[in-house]
Amino acid sequence: MKVGIIMGSDSDLKIMEQAAAVLEELGVEVEMDVMSAHRTPEKVLDYSRSAYTRGVKVIIAGAGGAAHLAGVVAAVSPLPVIGVPIKSSNSIDGWDSVLSMLQMPSGVPVATVALDGAKNAGILAAQMIATGDEALLGRIIAYKEAMKEKVEKASQKVRRGY
Amino acid sequence: MKVGIIMGSDSDLKIMEQAAAVLEELGVEVEMDVMSAHRTPEKVLDYSRSAYTRGVKVIIAGAGGAAHLAGVVAAVSPLPVIGVPIKSSNSIDGWDSVLSMLQMPSGVPVATVALDGAKNAGILAAQMIATGDEALLGRIIAYKEAMKEKVEKASQKVRRGY
Amino acid sequence: MKVGIIMGSDSDLKIMEQAAAVLEELGVEVEMDVMSAHRTPEKVLDYSRSAYTRGVKVIIAGAGGAAHLAGVVAAVSPLPVIGVPIKSSNSIDGWDSVLSMLQMPSGVPVATVALDGAKNAGILAAQMIATGDEALLGRIIAYKEAMKEKVEKASQKVRRGY
Amino acid sequence: MKVGIIMGSDSDLKIMEQAAAVLEELGVEVEMDVMSAHRTPEKVLDYSRSAYTRGVKVIIAGAGGAAHLAGVVAAVSPLPVIGVPIKSSNSIDGWDSVLSMLQMPSGVPVATVALDGAKNAGILAAQMIATGDEALLGRIIAYKEAMKEKVEKASQKVRRGY
Amino acid sequence: MKVGIIMGSDSDLKIMEQAAAVLEELGVEVEMDVMSAHRTPEKVLDYSRSAYTRGVKVIIAGAGGAAHLAGVVAAVSPLPVIGVPIKSSNSIDGWDSVLSMLQMPSGVPVATVALDGAKNAGILAAQMIATGDEALLGRIIAYKEAMKEKVEKASQKVRRGY
Amino acid sequence: MKVGIIMGSDSDLKIMEQAAAVLEELGVEVEMDVMSAHRTPEKVLDYSRSAYTRGVKVIIAGAGGAAHLAGVVAAVSPLPVIGVPIKSSNSIDGWDSVLSMLQMPSGVPVATVALDGAKNAGILAAQMIATGDEALLGRIIAYKEAMKEKVEKASQKVRRGY
Amino acid sequence: MKVGIIMGSDSDLKIMEQAAAVLEELGVEVEMDVMSAHRTPEKVLDYSRSAYTRGVKVIIAGAGGAAHLAGVVAAVSPLPVIGVPIKSSNSIDGWDSVLSMLQMPSGVPVATVALDGAKNAGILAAQMIATGDEALLGRIIAYKEAMKEKVEKASQKVRRGY
Amino acid sequence: MKVGIIMGSDSDLKIMEQAAAVLEELGVEVEMDVMSAHRTPEKVLDYSRSAYTRGVKVIIAGAGGAAHLAGVVAAVSPLPVIGVPIKSSNSIDGWDSVLSMLQMPSGVPVATVALDGAKNAGILAAQMIATGDEALLGRIIAYKEAMKEKVEKASQKVRRGY
Repeated sequence: MKVGIIMGSDSDLKIMEQAAAVLEELGVEVEMDVMSAHRTPEKVLDYSRSAYTRGVKVIIAGAGGAAHLAGVVAAVSPLPVIGVPIKSSNSIDGWDSVLSMLQMPSGVPVATVALDGAKNAGILAAQMIATGDEALLGRIIAYKEAMKEKVEKASQKVRRGY
Repeated sequence: MKVGIIMGSDSDLKIMEQAAAVLEELGVEVEMDVMSAHRTPEKVLDYSRSAYTRGVKVIIAGAGGAAHLAGVVAAVSPLPVIGVPIKSSNSIDGWDSVLSMLQMPSGVPVATVALDGAKNAGILAAQMIATGDEALLGRIIAYKEAMKEKVEKASQKVRRGY
Repeated sequence: MKVGIIMGSDSDLKIMEQAAAVLEELGVEVEMDVMSAHRTPEKVLDYSRSAYTRGVKVIIAGAGGAAHLAGVVAAVSPLPVIGVPIKSSNSIDGWDSVLSMLQMPSGVPVATVALDGAKNAGILAAQMIATGDEALLGRIIAYKEAMKEKVEKASQKVRRGY
Repeated sequence: MKVGIIMGSDSDLKIMEQAAAVLEELGVEVEMDVMSAHRTPEKVLDYSRSAYTRGVKVIIAGAGGAAHLAGVVAAVSPLPVIGVPIKSSNSIDGWDSVLSMLQMPSGVPVATVALDGAKNAGILAAQMIATGDEALLGRIIAYKEAMKEKVEKASQKVRRGY
Repeated sequence: MKVGIIMGSDSDLKIMEQAAAVLEELGVEVEMDVMSAHRTPEKVLDYSRSAYTRGVKVIIAGAGGAAHLAGVVAAVSPLPVIGVPIKSSNSIDGWDSVLSMLQMPSGVPVATVALDGAKNAGILAAQMIATGDEALLGRIIAYKEAMKEKVEKASQKVRRGY
Repeated sequence: MKVGIIMGSDSDLKIMEQAAAVLEELGVEVEMDVMSAHRTPEKVLDYSRSAYTRGVKVIIAGAGGAAHLAGVVAAVSPLPVIGVPIKSSNSIDGWDSVLSMLQMPSGVPVATVALDGAKNAGILAAQMIATGDEALLGRIIAYKEAMKEKVEKASQKVRRGY
Repeated sequence: MKVGIIMGSDSDLKIMEQAAAVLEELGVEVEMDVMSAHRTPEKVLDYSRSAYTRGVKVIIAGAGGAAHLAGVVAAVSPLPVIGVPIKSSNSIDGWDSVLSMLQMPSGVPVATVALDGAKNAGILAAQMIATGDEALLGRIIAYKEAMKEKVEKASQKVRRGY
Repeated sequence: MKVGIIMGSDSDLKIMEQAAAVLEELGVEVEMDVMSAHRTPEKVLDYSRSAYTRGVKVIIAGAGGAAHLAGVVAAVSPLPVIGVPIKSSNSIDGWDSVLSMLQMPSGVPVATVALDGAKNAGILAAQMIATGDEALLGRIIAYKEAMKEKVEKASQKVRRGY
């Protein structure tokens, strides 16, 4: 039971590692690889077809520019696919990667998160698996509680006047 | 084991019904309601807190304009939340609903689908539940096969020259 | 009689302090806190409900990205709510925070000011309170006069040819 | 004690009447006129200077395209100014009126509401006056309660499955 | 020696037929088919690999929304690929299809034409083949001359005052 | 002493006629023609070079899409060139024509007016000529006065409450 | 016979000086000042009314954000007004200043040049005055010739292969 | 048999050299020059007319801002023209150059590549010539294989967990 994390280029690694980190923090195993819908399309199709048989439950795909990686994976795999649009150096302010992930045609969803939102992709993947895993759901609830505490600490520094 | 489908206004029903239809086609039970992050915030919080205890596994939230519904649900519920941005009559071409759903802060993901993409939200919800339900995964695989056949029929009408 | 200034994260403090500064310059008391519509929604609701009873007359809410804070406060509080969209690091050039504050549905206004426009939010809050406070209105008129003088000084440096 | 509602052209009347309607529903007196920052600038300045002396407490200004009306009023009047960007026939999808109202320079705020959001402008104006008028605040609270009931009625039609 | 014209859906046929029409007018043979990068990805890969062996010299691919068809073909085929972004019904004003075709990564070009610009795609395909076909180049030159005459006729109707 | 009005296609005539109408109302002679930077470039260059010798003082150029007409004229002619971006049927909401007219490089200005703003182009051309023609300046002043009266009539219908 | 150059803030001076420089290079006298449509509106109106009587033939107005300066001047003065949208620090990538200058209503043109295009504004102002000044027109023609030489020098460095 | 590479300014050289480099790597001869549609229009027309007679098979034109260079070349030359929109310093985030290249009118295509995508322009030019040159097609196929290997090397660094 694990989450597959793929990215179109190793320059995306710095962003995509955040998905792996939060998943491991939540006790979910990950596998990670680089593959490109435009440079190694056969590898993407092979990965998309075989992931399911290896126990992968969710695939997270990050890419920039005309970001087709998540869409191609979603075309082939029956698993839920999460897309992380990445603001790469040659992107038009991120609009290209956002729109080429989000606006998928009817029948082939990609669950798109915020620009560079790999951490949220990891949490979302965990939430998906937790639909069938009570223990994981418990850890997600605890994770959300911990977030509250961080905001509360920030509040203690800033709060004044009441 | 069901999917909760909520929307900010009954004017969104025509779009959001498509999520219910595809889920029922895939054999997933749904519940549906209207509630507004801005007009009935307490109801949204109550729904978000209690859905889990009623066997809801995924929540789909559709809204237009400054579409906060999905984000508020995701703030409270540990369940995966799918956002359907809706191009309502007073929207700025849909950009407002897309951006106010997609660009969630770190820690609180919303799985955003295409503008008016309620059908894809339904399929995605089914894929999420199928991470723990082999039979449903089989029905999703069959659904994808049926899509291919529709494209193949269109091909038969259009194909010429080879 | 005071103005509540809240923000979604302590990283917004540098911007939001400008609202407090101008309000204090105009002789209006402020209270300030950090709370998040997505991480501490209950605190936001509690704040929004109770502010009125503590003598808060206007609430200024600053947030970035899918900026729901002002909308959630406006959903609950009967007070006028001023939204400050903030161009945070993961924003799409500020468009997300602008649109998710501005495009509120009918019935639940947020008075939105310019991107990072916390100073203007402070002045606007003072103007609102001044609808019932002649002395404050006088100080606002004086403030506007002082602005003219700054422009006149700049003119003295630049003016030539007539 | 009243609200001034002005607009750049009588073609904006259909939208701007909604501000008057909701204000009168809330028991706030209005005055209404057409004046143009570009065609009758002197009238705009006269209006902006004199409104305060006639008991006007808030000015709502609606305009389309390069919508300067609200900004010019805010430049002259010490009163809070609410801007209603209008999607007129020669607008670029409303972006021009939104940005030319919202992005006011430091020192001269315009409280901008959603595109064509005249109704919200009316409610916001009432909320501003209610900072000094307990009875009006009570009527606003009742107004918000009534909104909830409308959503609840929509819910009764749509709700199913739980 | 022919041009392959493919499209993601038969709803794109009305636009894409314009590419076939101008190519046939210029004496270039075409083949045409419907295939979807998201619904029939294997067919797209097979087509992309085999087109070259059948004498196809250029591939024109039209699609809307998150338009991945041209990019996937370009990933696999060594032939020049022309992309026609289509403003489909669920597109965000065409921005999604333009950006997801245009912003291809380094190494995998798609020659993108204007939104709904299938006619220009046909002319461009003919120009590409004409790099190795003098007779076709002559027909393109004649085609451009004929365009001038149409503008000259319009001029004769409108021209006045000199 | 006249104004040259040119347009890229006779489909632009309905818009561009408004420039001629206002110029003739102001007593300025016009000449008008259709010519295309992309279909009849030589004619555009000839026109741009010769206009000056015929007594043309200002050139107004209207075009849609990738609107190069005004820029090409400005490249060749020493006369002031006014660009009218036109929202043609295949435009991306007018953004393409606005940006391809407005964003001219240093040294080659195009005086750009609003989308479909041919009437304003006519007034602007008259203002330019009036820099050397007192009588025309007088007619422009009268024209502006007449506009005030139209707004005043609209005011008389709408004004109430003061 | 001179050109008035005004700007909303002395922070715009670095850009606006380029208009003065090119005008002086072309032998056109300038006057320059800082005044703000929002902070010193009366000064703007006074300037706009009196400029004509001082021999000013064209007014160039530069401003950023919700850039109303050029529009307010154009409302009052019968002279041609050139707008220079400026990408100031708090602008949304310049879109706000471009749209709030360009999209002027019918009857009140602003001749808008490129973002930060003060140099082009200067050239355009000279071209306007040259409609009644043959000697100046001659200097403009010479200026354009000199530009060609600069490009030719760049060509000599880069040219290779033919 | 060669490719002509032209650019509007020598400041574009750093980008446009990438087209030359990849073409030379693929064994295609290039010629290169600077010429401007707005500063040296006659040179652009001469180049466009004569290129064909010198054995140029494809023209690549790079420019920023209101990028008319590629369109003007395409107006005159029967050769295929590839446009490289460049994000120059005074561009509005590249949108201006993208739209003024892409949105060409019917009859005059420009094959537009990604913002700053000169390398892809080079590859595309080679693909166009390869429609009539088997040996070159072979080198393109080898080039694509080499790209796969680079991705595979990146994969070897990043891959883990499977």
